[in-house]
Amino acid sequence: SPGVPRCRGCAGSREVVPTCERYAVRRLPFARLEDGDVAFFERLMPGRVVTGEEEVKPFNVDWLKSVRGCSQLVLKPQTTAEVVQVLRYCHERNLAVNPQGGNTGLVGGSVPVFDEIILSTALMNQIISFDKVSGILVCQAGCVLERLSEFLEKQGFIMPLDLGAKGSCHIGGNVATNAGGLRLLRYGSLRGTVLGLEVVLADGLTLDCLTSLRKDNTGYDLKQLFIGSEGTLGVITAVSILCPQKPKAVNVAFLGCQSFAKVLETFTTCRAMLGEILSAYEFMDEKCMELVERHLKLSRPVAGSPFYVLIETSGSNSTHDEEKLNNFLERAMASGLVTDGTVATDNSKIKASCLRERITEALTHEGYVYKYDISLPVGKLYDLVTDMRDRLGQSAKNVVGYGHLGDGNLHLNITAESYSHSLLDAIEPFVYEWTAKCSGSISAEHGLGFKKKQFIHYSKPSEAVMLMQQFKAMLDPKGILNPYKTLPSAP
Amino acid sequence: SPGVPRCRGCAGSREVVPTCERYAVRRLPFARLEDGDVAFFERLMPGRVVTGEEEVKPFNVDWLKSVRGCSQLVLKPQTTAEVVQVLRYCHERNLAVNPQGGNTGLVGGSVPVFDEIILSTALMNQIISFDKVSGILVCQAGCVLERLSEFLEKQGFIMPLDLGAKGSCHIGGNVATNAGGLRLLRYGSLRGTVLGLEVVLADGLTLDCLTSLRKDNTGYDLKQLFIGSEGTLGVITAVSILCPQKPKAVNVAFLGCQSFAKVLETFTTCRAMLGEILSAYEFMDEKCMELVERHLKLSRPVAGSPFYVLIETSGSNSTHDEEKLNNFLERAMASGLVTDGTVATDNSKIKASCLRERITEALTHEGYVYKYDISLPVGKLYDLVTDMRDRLGQSAKNVVGYGHLGDGNLHLNITAESYSHSLLDAIEPFVYEWTAKCSGSISAEHGLGFKKKQFIHYSKPSEAVMLMQQFKAMLDPKGILNPYKTLPSAP
Repeated sequence: SPGVPRCRGCAGSREVVPTCERYAVRRLPFARLEDGDVAFFERLMPGRVVTGEEEVKPFNVDWLKSVRGCSQLVLKPQTTAEVVQVLRYCHERNLAVNPQGGNTGLVGGSVPVFDEIILSTALMNQIISFDKVSGILVCQAGCVLERLSEFLEKQGFIMPLDLGAKGSCHIGGNVATNAGGLRLLRYGSLRGTVLGLEVVLADGLTLDCLTSLRKDNTGYDLKQLFIGSEGTLGVITAVSILCPQKPKAVNVAFLGCQSFAKVLETFTTCRAMLGEILSAYEFMDEKCMELVERHLKLSRPVAGSPFYVLIETSGSNSTHDEEKLNNFLERAMASGLVTDGTVATDNSKIKASCLRERITEALTHEGYVYKYDISLPVGKLYDLVTDMRDRLGQSAKNVVGYGHLGDGNLHLNITAESYSHSLLDAIEPFVYEWTAKCSGSISAEHGLGFKKKQFIHYSKPSEAVMLMQQFKAMLDPKGILNPYKTLPSAP
Repeated sequence: SPGVPRCRGCAGSREVVPTCERYAVRRLPFARLEDGDVAFFERLMPGRVVTGEEEVKPFNVDWLKSVRGCSQLVLKPQTTAEVVQVLRYCHERNLAVNPQGGNTGLVGGSVPVFDEIILSTALMNQIISFDKVSGILVCQAGCVLERLSEFLEKQGFIMPLDLGAKGSCHIGGNVATNAGGLRLLRYGSLRGTVLGLEVVLADGLTLDCLTSLRKDNTGYDLKQLFIGSEGTLGVITAVSILCPQKPKAVNVAFLGCQSFAKVLETFTTCRAMLGEILSAYEFMDEKCMELVERHLKLSRPVAGSPFYVLIETSGSNSTHDEEKLNNFLERAMASGLVTDGTVATDNSKIKASCLRERITEALTHEGYVYKYDISLPVGKLYDLVTDMRDRLGQSAKNVVGYGHLGDGNLHLNITAESYSHSLLDAIEPFVYEWTAKCSGSISAEHGLGFKKKQFIHYSKPSEAVMLMQQFKAMLDPKGILNPYKTLPSAP
């Protein structure tokens, strides 16, 4: 758009439209990278400074291929001391910085918008300690979630969170975005399980709150401010997290329901009968399953229903757990809540969860995906999907709904051959207005990042947004940390 | 002490030494209450303004009778709008305010130090809504915890926290102090279960973050800053909280162990065998039980052991739960971990938990109690008690230890006929240095309040304390909210 200055470095390949071209966003007056800066970083961390358009490109484009920055530099520190040096230098020079974990975010928060320096945690991947009595893990921020899970399983523990991106996402990114995922229903949010954080602030000051205590009421809980702040208030360098014991028995059931009302009633019954062993209650509509089957060649254990439910139980006694699950299934089948169902055997367990976890991936095969991650009162959860389907008619390829029903969290996805402004205008702000009317959240677990930040007012009052801006100004007065993200730009 | 100005109103009864006399603390230059102020409040909330030394006295003295303020005025608003008016006025007039819930705090945080106006939530006791599908309760800050529990039990739910002070403490105070208690092991901390808060800031601005959503990642989680801020950053006026379903079966076992090493080993065995149904693991030493017996005339179910353990299970299937508990007890007895034990029947259940809950009360009968609430690595938990006992010898009446072992939380209590500076000097800073050496917390769940604020540095680095002070200055620039509390005064 006219008047928006082009940043350098955007002239290359055209596969993904650069964010600065697609969106009317103006580069803030940060300093521009100079040869002397690169030389400084080369001296600081030789061999771990990435330059060159092709080499930097994977760090510039998000996983969805929906946004693209124009950074010319990726830094890969190994230690907190290096992060301190980098930030102190950038703060002094007024260079903007984009902290990046596994780059699996879905709202454009993990890649630069213009030419921000990318600070990758990829090489900060060391486990610092694990205590088998307390189950407390302390590790660097760049540890990949799945690697941590594998490490813990050998010790008889599990991570308190699990999500589809586990093979790439970093624990630091998980914490920075307050990731939810499949186990939240059972083990609660990261706000409860993260016990300590080490954070480097914008000016290079290290905040060492990396305690390993279950309880600590000495002053304000500063770490909470960084959980879910999407790298805008500080760079998380290490995490202390409470890990549950590995359950001795895990069972998975895959069920078909004839209506969303029955999905809800099944949930109530299930919660009452499975109680403390229920660890996931996920739902997905027929269209989701169809796309997973078509694009990923995965077959589903149950077919022919408009809605499917995936139930997971985790417990300490397999006989008790199976008895509870069987009693529930008998009741659900007998009362017609569920028309078809299967309890996954050990081999098929992984396949059933895979179906659910790989919906996001299957959708990307359809073309451009408009993604919405909404919290709503559970009773109204699917109404938004049907309303949207009616509204868009033939202008969308698919309108699908799935999500963490147990947490009141709907993933609404709309696919089209390619991105179009007019389809976006048909979806937004309708989807946000609909959500606000029900006192829902316009981002349940994905965060606001770049794509949703202008819509924060649909879920937060202006006093709250003002206060957030004051926190930002206090902790990062020059605004160098992940600019253009999370908080709305001035009108 | 010389040079410390006496505040007005301290001339009365001498049972509890006024805080301003016992401790070397200087009144900050807030305005002093004038007749015109009282007249303003009388107009604002007629009949709910308490003046007169005798009437105000119960609000000036803490439950432990260890600190005493000299306030001349208690205000009892019923609505958030009234709290707004009060704070706007006080902010304008530079009058200091002491927010007060049930006044059950143990660190002198809930009563004034000088002549702060007491803002009591006692009449803000309305339940706003309860959703039986989601289990989300929304209520005013002054609801008494036990009243909420009774209300929920009728609906088939329970509060996610439970503590000895439940009959008096207010939910707003629980949140303001991030109360822990007996169920934390199972249902996690208030940082996870509190979904939303309404808070009035020092200048009267209302921050409405009273959402009822399990997940909401739209910007920074501001409410977290107020959880555990002990009324120093804002006044909590309403709370939205996620309540678990009422367990169908609750079992209590009371066990005797011959050493603390066996208490620990029993915990490991218990956690593995009871898994998801374990809801409390409390320990107490012989001396605690002896004092409860002597002062409260309660008999204990098991005697003759140096250590006792109280285990609670909560589950959805009584047959399964009893089987798990019996298997565990058989193992624990057979392997000599436990020398004596009893599973409480329905009638004796309440009695067994009572024993544990009323230790605090029993201790107050001994005279003055020096209370310490410490987080430590579980393995070292009781070493602090024995080290302290050796150190103090005959100068203390009793040195006892009990607490939430499952959370690594020790309550260390030292009793004496009356308060003495020399005994305090023998205890402090020794106890804090000992704790800091083990990277523990000097306040696990009680907070810092007035009595512990100068010791924050034993558990938090100076960068963190500085940041806390910046938050305080930003949210309450005149410092009128609960002054002299939580953060250390300038050296």
